Amino acid sequence: MNNNAIGVFDSGVGGLTCVSELQKILPNEDIIYLGDTARIPYGTRSRETVFEYARQDVAFFREHNVKMIIVACGTVSAVMMTYPIFDDDELASGVLYPAVWAACNATKNKRIGVIATSASIKSGGYGKAIHEIIPDAKLVGKACPMFVPLVENGYTDRNNEVAQIIARDYLQVMIDEDVDTLIMGCTHYPLLKDIIGDILGDKVTLISPGAEAAKYALRTLSERNMLSNSEKNGRLELYCTDSVELFTENVKAFLGSDINGTIYRTVLK
Amino acid sequence: MNNNAIGVFDSGVGGLTCVSELQKILPNEDIIYLGDTARIPYGTRSRETVFEYARQDVAFFREHNVKMIIVACGTVSAVMMTYPIFDDDELASGVLYPAVWAACNATKNKRIGVIATSASIKSGGYGKAIHEIIPDAKLVGKACPMFVPLVENGYTDRNNEVAQIIARDYLQVMIDEDVDTLIMGCTHYPLLKDIIGDILGDKVTLISPGAEAAKYALRTLSERNMLSNSEKNGRLELYCTDSVELFTENVKAFLGSDINGTIYRTVLK
Repeated sequence: MNNNAIGVFDSGVGGLTCVSELQKILPNEDIIYLGDTARIPYGTRSRETVFEYARQDVAFFREHNVKMIIVACGTVSAVMMTYPIFDDDELASGVLYPAVWAACNATKNKRIGVIATSASIKSGGYGKAIHEIIPDAKLVGKACPMFVPLVENGYTDRNNEVAQIIARDYLQVMIDEDVDTLIMGCTHYPLLKDIIGDILGDKVTLISPGAEAAKYALRTLSERNMLSNSEKNGRLELYCTDSVELFTENVKAFLGSDINGTIYRTVLK
Repeated sequence: MNNNAIGVFDSGVGGLTCVSELQKILPNEDIIYLGDTARIPYGTRSRETVFEYARQDVAFFREHNVKMIIVACGTVSAVMMTYPIFDDDELASGVLYPAVWAACNATKNKRIGVIATSASIKSGGYGKAIHEIIPDAKLVGKACPMFVPLVENGYTDRNNEVAQIIARDYLQVMIDEDVDTLIMGCTHYPLLKDIIGDILGDKVTLISPGAEAAKYALRTLSERNMLSNSEKNGRLELYCTDSVELFTENVKAFLGSDINGTIYRTVLK
């Protein structure tokens, strides 16, 4: 039993999709969330810069003494496969491996698609992880740099013409390559799930990394007997690096509602 | 006569449109360009954070002993009206005032539109500057947050359907409000000039802040007898805060060509 909080971080508010999943399956756990809003986005930056920012994000959680760190940022999850950011004795997970395990479980024809940021796709991390599990799997990766601005500016409705045109353009390769499973490798992308599903059809299984990472946290903490024994609902503390006002606005735009937690501003170093 | 370089900065590569204009009208001047690519974009951040980043950008140029600093970033230009970043004896210009002067000269019906980032529009800087010159001018401001990702991802062709739909949506208010002059208040926007022009028609004068800031630099340096007396073409040094490789890629995507200058990486503080 361990009543310390679970730490979750992302470059912005996107990782809150993972927090929502955690709250569903682990309602008694305290959660500390960090969104590096003064430097978002990570996905268009070089791997060296992503690594440096991630190192600072992890240092923040070490100060807060969390029992597990979830990297809800798809870009950091991919980059940290070649630039390790955790010590061996730290309990941590990215979103990449949980998503890859789910995808490898789901695929029947061994043809798996990944849509993600440019930095994630360039990292080669998805291919490496998938081939560890299914050596002869075919991976089809596609960077979708317009998806984050689409989500952040509210172009998410199933009937939105702009989002449909852009998504069809990005996803055509998945149809051409006959993938039966698609990893939505960036926390923002599940908000476009309806549009993506309409284009790819029912036969393609869509994997949400945030949800998979939450399930992985439950399994890991449970196995190690590190779940909280509190019977109250867990507390949510949120930290951002730009203003609290801006964070609150972004949360509302992203989730469509306010969030039930206390928001603080912090400086990373 | 002063042969020190002119400093130009922006959050990324967008300010290179201003550099191109400077090179056209002041071919013998050395130019030092800084793009804060590790923290781009500025336009979606709070004013306090924009101010802090801008303060570091200016400190960089103080170390490089430039004779004039041009803030090619529309967001910083707007924010610095309420958060000053220059000392009184420093020769400097944003893109806001030169653009506003040009717009106030061009308008006949005193109805001026401004399209810019959310931070620029929120700052109220354009209204303040316009009303100093034409107290009864009508200002129509519109944040266009999708324009930067459109440009950065190559959706700039006159016939691009996605860019047309988004631009029509943003610009409808300019038609409804009968503006006759439009300031494209972000360095990226002139790359959408064809699409914007097609929507607004010939009767609306489009103002490019980068070009206006370059003209202002020529006038200011000339008046103070601070132009270079070199007869050679000026040198261009470029500094970025993320990797040189990424900067080079971004320049190519933005300008459609390589740039003739030496690129270095720097750390701001």
